Amino acid sequence: MNKGLSLTRYLPIVSWLPHYEKGKLADDSIAAIIVAIMLIPQALAYALLAGLPPETGLYASIFGLSLYALFGTSNTLSVAPVAVISLMTAAALGRLTLDSVDETVVAAMTLALLSGGFLLLLGILRLGFMANFLSHPVISAFITASAIIIGLSQLQHVLGISTSGQNMIELLMSLDESLADTNFVTLGLGVGAIVFIVFCKTGLRRGLLSLGINDRLATMVSRSGPLLVALIMASLAWLLRLDQQGVALLGDVPQGLPVPAIPEFSLEMLRGLAGSAALISIIGFVESISVAQTLAARRRERIDLDQELVGLGASNIASSFGGGFPVTGGFSRSVVNFEAGAATPAAGLFTAILIAVVALFFTPVLFWLPKVCLAAIILVAIQSLIDFSVLTKSWHYSKADFTAVFITLVLTLTVGVEFGIAAGVLASILIHLYKTSQPHVAVIGRVVGTEHFRNSKRHKVETFENLLSIRIDESLYFANTRYLEELIFELVADDPKLKHVILACTAVNEVDMSALETLEKIDETLKQLNINLHLSEVKEPIMDKLAGTQFFRDLSGNNYLSHNQAVEDLKQGKPILGGLQ
Amino acid sequence: MNKGLSLTRYLPIVSWLPHYEKGKLADDSIAAIIVAIMLIPQALAYALLAGLPPETGLYASIFGLSLYALFGTSNTLSVAPVAVISLMTAAALGRLTLDSVDETVVAAMTLALLSGGFLLLLGILRLGFMANFLSHPVISAFITASAIIIGLSQLQHVLGISTSGQNMIELLMSLDESLADTNFVTLGLGVGAIVFIVFCKTGLRRGLLSLGINDRLATMVSRSGPLLVALIMASLAWLLRLDQQGVALLGDVPQGLPVPAIPEFSLEMLRGLAGSAALISIIGFVESISVAQTLAARRRERIDLDQELVGLGASNIASSFGGGFPVTGGFSRSVVNFEAGAATPAAGLFTAILIAVVALFFTPVLFWLPKVCLAAIILVAIQSLIDFSVLTKSWHYSKADFTAVFITLVLTLTVGVEFGIAAGVLASILIHLYKTSQPHVAVIGRVVGTEHFRNSKRHKVETFENLLSIRIDESLYFANTRYLEELIFELVADDPKLKHVILACTAVNEVDMSALETLEKIDETLKQLNINLHLSEVKEPIMDKLAGTQFFRDLSGNNYLSHNQAVEDLKQGKPILGGLQ
Repeated sequence: MNKGLSLTRYLPIVSWLPHYEKGKLADDSIAAIIVAIMLIPQALAYALLAGLPPETGLYASIFGLSLYALFGTSNTLSVAPVAVISLMTAAALGRLTLDSVDETVVAAMTLALLSGGFLLLLGILRLGFMANFLSHPVISAFITASAIIIGLSQLQHVLGISTSGQNMIELLMSLDESLADTNFVTLGLGVGAIVFIVFCKTGLRRGLLSLGINDRLATMVSRSGPLLVALIMASLAWLLRLDQQGVALLGDVPQGLPVPAIPEFSLEMLRGLAGSAALISIIGFVESISVAQTLAARRRERIDLDQELVGLGASNIASSFGGGFPVTGGFSRSVVNFEAGAATPAAGLFTAILIAVVALFFTPVLFWLPKVCLAAIILVAIQSLIDFSVLTKSWHYSKADFTAVFITLVLTLTVGVEFGIAAGVLASILIHLYKTSQPHVAVIGRVVGTEHFRNSKRHKVETFENLLSIRIDESLYFANTRYLEELIFELVADDPKLKHVILACTAVNEVDMSALETLEKIDETLKQLNINLHLSEVKEPIMDKLAGTQFFRDLSGNNYLSHNQAVEDLKQGKPILGGLQ
Repeated sequence: MNKGLSLTRYLPIVSWLPHYEKGKLADDSIAAIIVAIMLIPQALAYALLAGLPPETGLYASIFGLSLYALFGTSNTLSVAPVAVISLMTAAALGRLTLDSVDETVVAAMTLALLSGGFLLLLGILRLGFMANFLSHPVISAFITASAIIIGLSQLQHVLGISTSGQNMIELLMSLDESLADTNFVTLGLGVGAIVFIVFCKTGLRRGLLSLGINDRLATMVSRSGPLLVALIMASLAWLLRLDQQGVALLGDVPQGLPVPAIPEFSLEMLRGLAGSAALISIIGFVESISVAQTLAARRRERIDLDQELVGLGASNIASSFGGGFPVTGGFSRSVVNFEAGAATPAAGLFTAILIAVVALFFTPVLFWLPKVCLAAIILVAIQSLIDFSVLTKSWHYSKADFTAVFITLVLTLTVGVEFGIAAGVLASILIHLYKTSQPHVAVIGRVVGTEHFRNSKRHKVETFENLLSIRIDESLYFANTRYLEELIFELVADDPKLKHVILACTAVNEVDMSALETLEKIDETLKQLNINLHLSEVKEPIMDKLAGTQFFRDLSGNNYLSHNQAVEDLKQGKPILGGLQ
């Protein structure tokens, strides 16, 4: 590979920067403003959700967005804190004993570093396929359960009380205990904020559009609900001295930008966070690439999964060095970026600059921001994540999928996020193995007057008494070879007139070594009963593999290109009409 | 199910005992004698291998054989101690701190109880399919590595020294340390015993057959090598007082039979042995049913896998209550039983009675038996278990299988049996998932003048510029949906003239919910590019599942019964000749 190509692969900015022009600059700038309006309050809110000081959300956004712009392959992905990953960060930190806020921040930075390192490693080793083991329904169930836990954890801020817990049960018990301390001023602010944000997203947008305001501007205004409500509430809190009414304020947020530095982690902390970091990386990666892939496909662009791992890895490491916590590509934010017209990763870089401006000059305003306002922003945001339809959909489609969904949902809610997702992944893998270990196998016969063979339980077909035709609807591999062996011996034990068994392999996509050995063993055993074993319609990639072995030389029967040819060659006596047993 | 049938299922003896007659009695008796001759020294040797007093091997055989005769479904399986399971027993006990021989025996009994309980549970819950996750090549590699460890562990008895270790490295280091203490009288006896046993198995048998002696008698004599050598050596030891030459004797073996009792286990011991018991059960079950299935098929008999779990479970529980250790169906012993003509499970019962006679009356003879003699018996027996051909065979057949084999072999040898087999199982599952996560997918075209479609990279075919035909050679499930999505979007991004994508589903045996959602998402995205998605030749079981969903109603394209029909319906312009790119 030449050097230029390789540079383009590992540093995608090299491929787009030279062609950067005015039109793209305008598009990217507008998209950057819209995303920044959305991200500023989100960044503060998700820091709060992760149990960290608000400025860490700003830092994570600035550094995450910038590095992704250099290394990422999506033009529209917005890499910064997201709700589910922030919750997982809170869960990971919650398991450590951390004595001070400083120590908690260092732990969060360590988590981002580990998570980034893990992503980078997967990217360099090209192991992105590992993300495939998270099935869609399991992720949906996990996100729904996480959103519920997030919602419950934010209720404390809306009610002006203090609760704790890592799962639904703990949070509900904790809420129940302190519900009597509800601060009604806070509650009023919270409800007001939620109504305002929802109105901006729905009614206001429709109103603006019907007034003939152009789509981009309408989007910008409607997305500024959270920022507007934050400004309004901070002003109210300052004017009315709401802190004296028991309303919790965000408080001091340091002004300026952090000097990037490697977190001062301990070995013990690394050990305690490694497992969580791996989970966070995988979940973050899966979330991020599903949105990146969808958005790229809509414009016939491509993303490179292994390079995405590098991009997200770099973002997380940068977030760590900059005093932030784990980040990933967020769904709604990226869609907004896409719809606002972001043309290149530069849009992300511009968003980072806007947030840096906030961190440099506007943090004093944040002092007066009521925490309930951030909780309201989170509550509105997570509402789109909750989707119970996956339960009913999977129930109707397949009980196997439902089982995995149910396990994930229930265990995430009742035990916690890490246990829940791990159990869900394990369950879906075991269920898949179980299903393929008992494949659909049909005794087939010929549809009279044709050369087509069909399942004798579903169709009227003809068979011959000296032949047994079996179609296997599954790849043959270790988990189902014994099933096949048992099935053939059972069918053969019933039938003393049998002279030939023909396996139709149209749907056999693989024959691993266990299966090869089993076929040899079945042949060996059938030989002693004077029965020959034949194969038909073996696929080319499998023929290539088997050609290198003794298999066809030792086989008692033949290999036929067509099943009909096999039956014509081997049949004896008159056809027996049957089927539809 | 009526009660009679159910009794036959759970207590197979009910089905054969009423038809028991003289001919079968004669056959079973002869088989029982041959197997007993073989088993008596084996039972003592495997007890030694497990690190237990010799009589425990006799008890395990008596109780294991008897209960299997009641509950097992194979007519020829011989359930008693076997080499690999005895080694695994030694490994399991080696991890506990056991202060006395009595405590060690209780631990072994507990292990047999747990293992039996586990098997029984799997049988009752009909979970026998779990054994399928052990692939053939992994088991071969595991048995080869175990045999090497067993061989190394027995060298101490042949050299008259004392070594210890759970893996090859520890054993070799331990041997190296004490090699200087070799007792040459012992070594002489060992070499002599090995030569004698090998001669009986090979030369003597051939000699007898050529003298016209009948096959059964020749087998009996040749199989009595271990028993004969034991008698000869015990006599020599007594006559020459070989103990004074430093030859280790078996020593006191209590006379009589144990009174069955539940082992006095502690909760801590149960916890410490549970994992080992699960591994022992699964390995034992897999070993046992492979031989039972092969032998049954040769006579057109059947075995019932779930009832086999019950049979082996009962045997192990009985072995536990009788003061024994874990047992299972041994390969060579069962083959001998089969070839000697065992007609019903009664043969096993008769073997048990013969061994009980030895335990009752002949244990004083065992006092003078040199331990080296038992080591020689083991060394000859394990030689047939070592088979490195699995390495070369898998290397040539598939690097994926080779990887699993290599991992199992190396880790069993260098770390130990439990770690080795666990790693092997995990590796083979991960490798399988990896392979199916990157399925073989072919862009197909029509072979000119036919209705057949073939891979355009392998055949000369015609295509149409507005159509893209893709054949997927794998079931669609969560682990490969993203791969498919990426692939389709990549092919589509290249081709602005495209109007239709047709997926040929001939080899798709399953569509799980992740795959369904991915197909919906692909369709959604293609719609925005004005491309329609079609399916062709979807299998009936999948059609049944999809019919219950909105999928076909929402799909932008159609579902075609034949791929050719789809192409005929959708094609535009002239065919493009190509292929064999």
